Amino acid sequence: MPTQPDGTAAGDLQITGRTGHRRLKERGTHDRDIVNAILDEGLMCHVGVVDGGTPVVTPMAYARVDDHLYLHGAPANRTLRLVADGGAACVTVSLVDALVLARSAFHHSMNYRCVMLFGTGQAVTDPKEKLAASAALVEHMAPGRSGHVRLPNESELRSTLIARFAIEEGSAKIRTGGVKEDDEDLGLPIWAGIIPFAIVPGSGEPDEGLPDGTPVPPYATSYPDRRREVAPGP
Amino acid sequence: MPTQPDGTAAGDLQITGRTGHRRLKERGTHDRDIVNAILDEGLMCHVGVVDGGTPVVTPMAYARVDDHLYLHGAPANRTLRLVADGGAACVTVSLVDALVLARSAFHHSMNYRCVMLFGTGQAVTDPKEKLAASAALVEHMAPGRSGHVRLPNESELRSTLIARFAIEEGSAKIRTGGVKEDDEDLGLPIWAGIIPFAIVPGSGEPDEGLPDGTPVPPYATSYPDRRREVAPGP
Repeated sequence: MPTQPDGTAAGDLQITGRTGHRRLKERGTHDRDIVNAILDEGLMCHVGVVDGGTPVVTPMAYARVDDHLYLHGAPANRTLRLVADGGAACVTVSLVDALVLARSAFHHSMNYRCVMLFGTGQAVTDPKEKLAASAALVEHMAPGRSGHVRLPNESELRSTLIARFAIEEGSAKIRTGGVKEDDEDLGLPIWAGIIPFAIVPGSGEPDEGLPDGTPVPPYATSYPDRRREVAPGP
Repeated sequence: MPTQPDGTAAGDLQITGRTGHRRLKERGTHDRDIVNAILDEGLMCHVGVVDGGTPVVTPMAYARVDDHLYLHGAPANRTLRLVADGGAACVTVSLVDALVLARSAFHHSMNYRCVMLFGTGQAVTDPKEKLAASAALVEHMAPGRSGHVRLPNESELRSTLIARFAIEEGSAKIRTGGVKEDDEDLGLPIWAGIIPFAIVPGSGEPDEGLPDGTPVPPYATSYPDRRREVAPGP
């Protein structure tokens, strides 16, 4: 595969001063497929901005379309406004997979997958792109749903702030596997192992007053597994 | 209950320019019991710092002891180092409870609970406090475990950076309940409702080579429900 000047494969995310991995390099990757899989699985991102010198970290819904994330909210949402106005931002998506319980307190850890993206956003102003982003945000929540809902009208589009954020500079970090422990602790009679965690969807709870005969979409009774498995590249 | 100058109850978190709720006030609270319940349920926080002008949001494990959070990591962890050195930080813990699927794309939402804390941290240097924080970090992962593990020795304590962060200025935001929708959409034959999500622990997977007769702690076979229900105050 052709490589970029920084040594990553074509299409991968940029390695820069803030996205190179200084420590635990084996956990880091700039592989775009792995980054996208984590972004597509998560439901919530944490958006960091600097507001008057103070860092502010706000949880938000998001959706990915190709090489961009879309964030949306009310125009009065300060964090979103800062992103839309081109302020520096960091968008992080994290998934907890397991607790790693070692014999020693020191080696306790978590299995997780996370993506950290750096950059600046732009406000989406084109109504067509706004509509497409709105559909993507719904689709991210429930695959197929953008074809079922009433899409936003002009007035709703005007009162929604949508920011576009490039998936360009950033990286993924992943810890998998079991307990890593000092040799001299291995013989201790202390239980050690991992406790896996999964985010499990329940059955949909319908709103009151749905008209008789309203079609029940598949995700309402059996929400699909969001997990995307991607093997790390060579 | 006696109130503080900002109108909150004694012991509650401070309302300041950055923690007052400008929008959707009904979702916000400074009630310390509610804040603590969310912090105790979460496994991962997102720590925001400003590093050379850039916001950086890093997922981290944490534990609460009374009115402080403890964060820990390697001394080379840049975000943690900035917090420990007293840089401004924002620590956010978010829990996703449900997707809220409305008839209109515009009213899609999530049920969530989150806490945002602002302040500056300090490095924990006293070995006794470091040891207690290490125990709390293990205990946060699995109740009872601090009594089972080998606690850190001096050399491990020296090579762990622990930062203390006060739970003082901040707030919780909570969305619960069902779909909220424009009246004119209620008759549409579009499925609407909520899809609940739960973080479900699996059964512990023991490390290879545990000595025969190693006691199996209760959290290894049946990890306890982390959910803490707290009724919002009057």
